Amino acid sequence: MEINYLSKKIGIIGGGQLGKMMINEASKLGISTAILDPGIDCPASPLANEAIVAAFNDKAALEELAKKTDVLTCEFEHISTEALKYLEDHGYIVYPKAKSLEAIQNKYQQKKLLQDNSIPLGPFKKADSTESIKAAAAEYGYPLMVKSASGAYDGKGNYLVTSEEEISEAYSSLNGDENLLYVEQFIPFTKEISVLCCRTMNGEIVVYPVAENIHRDSILYETIAPANITDKQTQDAEKLAKEICHMFDGVGMFCVEMFVHENGDILVNEVAPRPHNSGHYTIEACITSQFENHVRAVLGLPLGKTDLHSPVVMRNLLGEDGHEGIPLVKGVSEALAYPGLTLHIYGKSTTKPQRKMGHFTVLAKTVEEALSTADQAQSVLKIISEKTPKG
Amino acid sequence: MEINYLSKKIGIIGGGQLGKMMINEASKLGISTAILDPGIDCPASPLANEAIVAAFNDKAALEELAKKTDVLTCEFEHISTEALKYLEDHGYIVYPKAKSLEAIQNKYQQKKLLQDNSIPLGPFKKADSTESIKAAAAEYGYPLMVKSASGAYDGKGNYLVTSEEEISEAYSSLNGDENLLYVEQFIPFTKEISVLCCRTMNGEIVVYPVAENIHRDSILYETIAPANITDKQTQDAEKLAKEICHMFDGVGMFCVEMFVHENGDILVNEVAPRPHNSGHYTIEACITSQFENHVRAVLGLPLGKTDLHSPVVMRNLLGEDGHEGIPLVKGVSEALAYPGLTLHIYGKSTTKPQRKMGHFTVLAKTVEEALSTADQAQSVLKIISEKTPKG
Repeated sequence: MEINYLSKKIGIIGGGQLGKMMINEASKLGISTAILDPGIDCPASPLANEAIVAAFNDKAALEELAKKTDVLTCEFEHISTEALKYLEDHGYIVYPKAKSLEAIQNKYQQKKLLQDNSIPLGPFKKADSTESIKAAAAEYGYPLMVKSASGAYDGKGNYLVTSEEEISEAYSSLNGDENLLYVEQFIPFTKEISVLCCRTMNGEIVVYPVAENIHRDSILYETIAPANITDKQTQDAEKLAKEICHMFDGVGMFCVEMFVHENGDILVNEVAPRPHNSGHYTIEACITSQFENHVRAVLGLPLGKTDLHSPVVMRNLLGEDGHEGIPLVKGVSEALAYPGLTLHIYGKSTTKPQRKMGHFTVLAKTVEEALSTADQAQSVLKIISEKTPKG
Repeated sequence: MEINYLSKKIGIIGGGQLGKMMINEASKLGISTAILDPGIDCPASPLANEAIVAAFNDKAALEELAKKTDVLTCEFEHISTEALKYLEDHGYIVYPKAKSLEAIQNKYQQKKLLQDNSIPLGPFKKADSTESIKAAAAEYGYPLMVKSASGAYDGKGNYLVTSEEEISEAYSSLNGDENLLYVEQFIPFTKEISVLCCRTMNGEIVVYPVAENIHRDSILYETIAPANITDKQTQDAEKLAKEICHMFDGVGMFCVEMFVHENGDILVNEVAPRPHNSGHYTIEACITSQFENHVRAVLGLPLGKTDLHSPVVMRNLLGEDGHEGIPLVKGVSEALAYPGLTLHIYGKSTTKPQRKMGHFTVLAKTVEEALSTADQAQSVLKIISEKTPKG
């Protein structure tokens, strides 16, 4: 029996930049899409065939999205797994699966599971009181990282504690009486890396080149591929990413963020069950982008090659401090004049300080050349607001 | 003064696959689009921010499109230049310019202009009667090509005459009493090649690697890059393409189709003032695609690098004979399993024999490897209709 592949439709929970980039790839393959997002003017809505404007956890709206489509996927992991389980129980297909999301959403449980499967991690423990944080400090020393187990992203929900005086502030600002918190020993790392992989429902898996990430204020600033690490470290990182993707029974893209410890060991930091900011470089630099492979995987199609065309640097474009309102992108013409530069502007209707508004990618013969071009482009590209800066 | 680049909007006349691929690149850059097309369900309409459903030569609708946007461009050249001149006279920006289109639309005048600028061409002459075709035959010998000067594409409007008996049939089937016809000597060519270039309003120009084209039934079947020709031929072809693009005062993408004569000379065949089917390979194989450079050019932005990542083969996917109706794509799963293959399905609502429904691109270490993968993929990919084949 012949299935009409063209009649397939993907439902995407979330209409941000990741959803937008998924839709671009789906559309290339002739696949239509529907999104669910609370924002009527979210980045993905002009490209989606259909948009449902609703809260991410609106069960009725999620079911409406599922009814309209052949498979549901998401661009972020903070979705009610109870709602997704309900949909799965009613015969709808959801990738990543509700149980994969559930095992990942709660970062403390995620770490426990990784630990139980003897994945190398830094020391961590639950922090249900200021006393337990003090106890951890006595064991780990300062600084230490206190984190909220749920809903954290881009540094939100993290608190770096450098002395005993800050513990009660950390506990209260992370609302420890309401939220499950945990403490991590601060890892003396030489590099942060991430490994993207994509897995099919049959367990076929492809791995992208290991990338090196630099964060600023806990937000991804830059990704460099290939990462400047040893062959042994590359093999270890790729092996860990595959193990973890299988462990969570992933379908679609997975990103595993890792630390390279001073002593050379690879330690896993955290897992995201979706295309990831640190994989944006794959659009220009790889034969198949992370978004195309995600679309292929959720549709049950074979995965594409992940080979790198050339060294690459990706930089995020964040809203400038003091600017809020309708975005204005400065320096586009100057930036596009740099060889090998590709610009992505997400089309968000308002800019805010530190908000991810776009990114650019530079392909070059060497990483060094790409970095120097990226520095020059960065110095001219600015996301400000049309209104006069506040304060 | 800072121009808000994000508030720019491009108006595209034509919502077919070329329009769709333009919109993908515009959207990546954060640029919105409006299209004008008679088909409400044309390939570009789900992606465009706005769609005007009207005939291509509906002057009022074209003016509405111009009013809504900052610059007009087109995905094909058969548009009323009288209407476009009217828009230019009223201060709207149109790229390519009306006068460039006018000089190109009428293929006989196009050839005259190329000839007057001493561009190497095969012999041709006007054919205003069967007698003049006979006279041409006496001079050129058989076979010879009789062509309609206007509105011809994909072999429509061409007639290959192999003997005197066919002349009156050729003349009447091309409706010579109504249309301007011309006769071309049949060129004994060893290869057909095309050179894509992109030009800004300031005359900056970039050239893509020379590509080799194979046609079947006068429809493009395959494009191979880089073309297997001598360095001298490559230089000549690139030089000619630049000259011609400047000659027509082009803004945006231009495609110059050429013959490699048995004697090794490069002869120009015809010119298209837009992104071209033989440039689809640039999406996966080049640093900047023909569509991104077209968008950059019409917006007055600097052009991107045209370097080839790797050898590439592009094949068109045409509707199978005997199949008409809702399209069904066979063999997608098998085809996507071939390494380095990317599939584009345009999303046309109906298939017809020989209709361009999609294409695929294969990247590989060598052209030979890409060709053998393409052959295997081609043998499984078929565009049929959901209905039972007609008789």
